[in-house]
Amino acid sequence: MSKPIVATIIGDPAGIGPEVTVRALATGTPYEVSRPVLIGCTEAVEWAVGVTGVNLEVKRVTDIAGVGENPGVIEVYDTGKLDPNDYEVGVESASCGQATADWLKEGEELALAGQVDAVVMAPINTGAMKMAKVLDQIIPPEPGLTYLTLFNGPLRVVHLTDHMPLSKVSGVITQDLVYGAIKLINETFVKWGVSNPKIGVSGFNCHAVGEEDEKEITPGVDRARADGMDVVGPIPPDTVFRRCVDGQYDVVLCMYHDQGHIALKTWKFDGNCATTLGTDYLSMSVAHGTAFDIVGQNIANHEMILNSMLQAASFIDGRGFI
Amino acid sequence: MSKPIVATIIGDPAGIGPEVTVRALATGTPYEVSRPVLIGCTEAVEWAVGVTGVNLEVKRVTDIAGVGENPGVIEVYDTGKLDPNDYEVGVESASCGQATADWLKEGEELALAGQVDAVVMAPINTGAMKMAKVLDQIIPPEPGLTYLTLFNGPLRVVHLTDHMPLSKVSGVITQDLVYGAIKLINETFVKWGVSNPKIGVSGFNCHAVGEEDEKEITPGVDRARADGMDVVGPIPPDTVFRRCVDGQYDVVLCMYHDQGHIALKTWKFDGNCATTLGTDYLSMSVAHGTAFDIVGQNIANHEMILNSMLQAASFIDGRGFI
Repeated sequence: MSKPIVATIIGDPAGIGPEVTVRALATGTPYEVSRPVLIGCTEAVEWAVGVTGVNLEVKRVTDIAGVGENPGVIEVYDTGKLDPNDYEVGVESASCGQATADWLKEGEELALAGQVDAVVMAPINTGAMKMAKVLDQIIPPEPGLTYLTLFNGPLRVVHLTDHMPLSKVSGVITQDLVYGAIKLINETFVKWGVSNPKIGVSGFNCHAVGEEDEKEITPGVDRARADGMDVVGPIPPDTVFRRCVDGQYDVVLCMYHDQGHIALKTWKFDGNCATTLGTDYLSMSVAHGTAFDIVGQNIANHEMILNSMLQAASFIDGRGFI
Repeated sequence: MSKPIVATIIGDPAGIGPEVTVRALATGTPYEVSRPVLIGCTEAVEWAVGVTGVNLEVKRVTDIAGVGENPGVIEVYDTGKLDPNDYEVGVESASCGQATADWLKEGEELALAGQVDAVVMAPINTGAMKMAKVLDQIIPPEPGLTYLTLFNGPLRVVHLTDHMPLSKVSGVITQDLVYGAIKLINETFVKWGVSNPKIGVSGFNCHAVGEEDEKEITPGVDRARADGMDVVGPIPPDTVFRRCVDGQYDVVLCMYHDQGHIALKTWKFDGNCATTLGTDYLSMSVAHGTAFDIVGQNIANHEMILNSMLQAASFIDGRGFI
């Protein structure tokens, strides 16, 4: 079986994306489990190789065919979207914002065309994308269709809803929405190689006692269980994440943004990586930002982007969590 | 200066309360910083001494005067509220529920009369108290008056609201409520020995962006800052607790039950102790339950009750967090 092609977008070229990406590739492990290729600006990658001092050759490609076979070479799919004279390292700019948006689009097109198996995204800069008026190209998760999903070791959390006023969440939670999300989690996890995933569903109110818990979450969970899925809930929100950390569940379905995010970020800040459930192709990203203040110092941690690359390859091959 | 008198209610006598209390006293440290006394049933304490094998004498007292001077002696303030033949270890009963309620009342009366300086509560059993129809004697925190407060090492969280439907919280948050809570935290922490406490206030919505954050929390925080308090906020709820763990704040004011509880319980389950801000006297309790399944095995952890005893003594003496 041939290894999956994992395309990593270098993120905002003025941020730490290029250097962490290059250092992740220099570990060699992405080449062991995948055929890696970058999407971005060749000169930005060359700069990052210089800054990090890694012993890798940089090669511009405009065709995906045959990429990622040689661990000594970083291939950059570069269609000239960014003029390397048009930006400065560590500085927010419209040109970088525009280029980031273009590369995201290229990654999507390559994935939808089946030319790459998964896309990984190094940190983007929303300020730069706002300057380029392309921020609206980032499509947020939409309840019922797509679900923000964060991983940090044993703690994996799917968000039923994402950015919306907390006072509005109650009105959005329905039996069908809960059932549909559980079904999608089950299917996706099985596809990724987690057989018979154990799913813990968080309640909405404290102690999982309240109208939403009784009238919407409970029937949604019961229906999924009747379908044969290994799911429990609603579990009191203040214990469900700790139970997941302790291995009782493979994943938690939570009801709103902060429910999951508070658990993930308070437990351990480092190590998070993100994906969206329900999309047409696998796309992973890191939880950290562009960190303009430390760009070029070769001190940014590459663990998250490396984890994202390796995790993407493992999911595509149905080998589950790494 | 004489040491403060800290009265510890043994909790539901059928639970692990008596044995963890006895083991905490056997460490000797409560006697170094306070004059400890128990409130409960002498025979239950004697049973716990037998189970734990600690080398302490148990002495029944009906007067607080002169207690807690001798580390070799456990004094039990016992007014005969429980007939020791009326309960069985590890079993929920109305007699234990009634006795627990009586002891809580005694602790309150002694504290309000100035006979004891602080009250510590070993785990009670709400099931038993429900059987005795005395559960309504436990008065829950009320926004604007009293605030549930949990401590776990560097993570200290005051809850603006406690048990209420999450969809109703938005309507309760006002500038005045936020300001009043910050003021109370500041005064209480100063009294406890934390000079110029740094207070981080959590937002309500994700990223602290929303109507409640702008119209209520921000003006409340600004008013407290204008009064000279060291307070910042609203901080994004998904980072404020991690920042507190990392030492940026002495305490977090959070907006609703699960916001704080998810952070505390996911970060570390062990070690929590609780108090209520805004009450007439200092009362601390442990976060764990009566654990009927392991009563009498001498394996229950006494760290939380010991921490509560030592923390209470430190607060009374204005020595801050231990």
